[in-house]
Amino acid sequence: MNRWLTKENERIDDLDPLDLKIIQNPTQFCFGIDAVILADFAAKSIKKHANVLDMCAGNGIITLLLTHKSEAERITALEIQEDVAEMADRSIRMNGLEGRAEMVCGDLKRAPEIFGKGVFDNIVCNPPYKESGGGLRSKNPSAAIARHEIMCSLEDVVSSAAALLKPLGKLSVIHRPERLADLLILMKQNKIEPKRLRAVYPSYKKAASMVLVEGARGGRPKLICEPPLYIYEENGEYTDEIKIIYERK
Amino acid sequence: MNRWLTKENERIDDLDPLDLKIIQNPTQFCFGIDAVILADFAAKSIKKHANVLDMCAGNGIITLLLTHKSEAERITALEIQEDVAEMADRSIRMNGLEGRAEMVCGDLKRAPEIFGKGVFDNIVCNPPYKESGGGLRSKNPSAAIARHEIMCSLEDVVSSAAALLKPLGKLSVIHRPERLADLLILMKQNKIEPKRLRAVYPSYKKAASMVLVEGARGGRPKLICEPPLYIYEENGEYTDEIKIIYERK
Repeated sequence: MNRWLTKENERIDDLDPLDLKIIQNPTQFCFGIDAVILADFAAKSIKKHANVLDMCAGNGIITLLLTHKSEAERITALEIQEDVAEMADRSIRMNGLEGRAEMVCGDLKRAPEIFGKGVFDNIVCNPPYKESGGGLRSKNPSAAIARHEIMCSLEDVVSSAAALLKPLGKLSVIHRPERLADLLILMKQNKIEPKRLRAVYPSYKKAASMVLVEGARGGRPKLICEPPLYIYEENGEYTDEIKIIYERK
Repeated sequence: MNRWLTKENERIDDLDPLDLKIIQNPTQFCFGIDAVILADFAAKSIKKHANVLDMCAGNGIITLLLTHKSEAERITALEIQEDVAEMADRSIRMNGLEGRAEMVCGDLKRAPEIFGKGVFDNIVCNPPYKESGGGLRSKNPSAAIARHEIMCSLEDVVSSAAALLKPLGKLSVIHRPERLADLLILMKQNKIEPKRLRAVYPSYKKAASMVLVEGARGGRPKLICEPPLYIYEENGEYTDEIKIIYERK
């Protein structure tokens, strides 16, 4: 089967113990724990029959996870890079999920034209973390697009989401702590009220490495700082909560 | 000695094990753990010989603690209520701290006129948490002023601080998580760059009850989410870190 499904440099990974597989190209970009954490965080707010959009979908990891972690009726994955979107599309089909999940190749800045306004109950986004000029840029252009704000800025993500969400629809984002203030400001400016904030710590004594934020379009101001999420125990093993997140359906 | 130092309804509390006492009026307002936590958080950024302002100083608890927890040269406590300021002034004198600490009765909105612009290295503020119209208002007017944004708003606090701080001077604030977005936005708008964020949790599994935020006037954007601060162990005792905070000089 493999020889038809994968192209050069690609491999198929098992998302054990979930009954899912994903095609990845390690020369470009492989998903990290941030995608898994975000999918779990967002899934808590996805209701039965929800219409969900996964922005900056990349290889489709979040879309795949949400087919198992939520009861969403439909999950649309939007990715700007054609070859990456095509690979994600093969992952969806390989898992037999084409009834619930769909891959769309397009620019999120034009997403309200593509999908219409006020149509999604939930939008999930694992955006590029680094500002366009910031940090060492990968020589691989696809990896650079995944990691740097080359094709879209955080402002593009939030303003598109504001147009695409139904009233009280939720936008769930993971980002670096140093962009937290920007993210909260952009949400407020776009009338997406921050409602849930959860910081992710690599271990018990370190500063946070990521933050999860969820806002509701037109929601009432009431931000809850959820308990911290720790990734590693002191012995280097995953914490119990991370183990559950990897396994939870 | 007591009979000269205290007035009706007032009592003297020991800030054990620190060599400090404070006069409080329990019919008005007594300091809480938030003041102790904020003093400790802010003290980490107060350098030797610093010129420090304690805004919304109330009974002067933070000013008193900072005389022990920092090597600041001068700590000025600013409080708008005359009787509260007068009581705090007696606390400063009772501790023999009038050389390093000074009580000023005045409106923080006029603080740049009182003290001049760009004069403080650090500003610490434990502001009223509740918006003017929000929540049940205390029948005691002094308690209401301490808890509600009656005499000053969060915007007044941040904009006054921006005028009062030296370049790269620090503003350290404690507030409720639901105001975190507002606080970060106001800091950014007033060119006080958020640098340190620490959420305070009542216990290991609960949502945060308070957030500590420190910004630097004109600083470069780089927010660090510090490890969470837990108040209580599961058995109801203070955590080791809280015990240290109460004892640390």
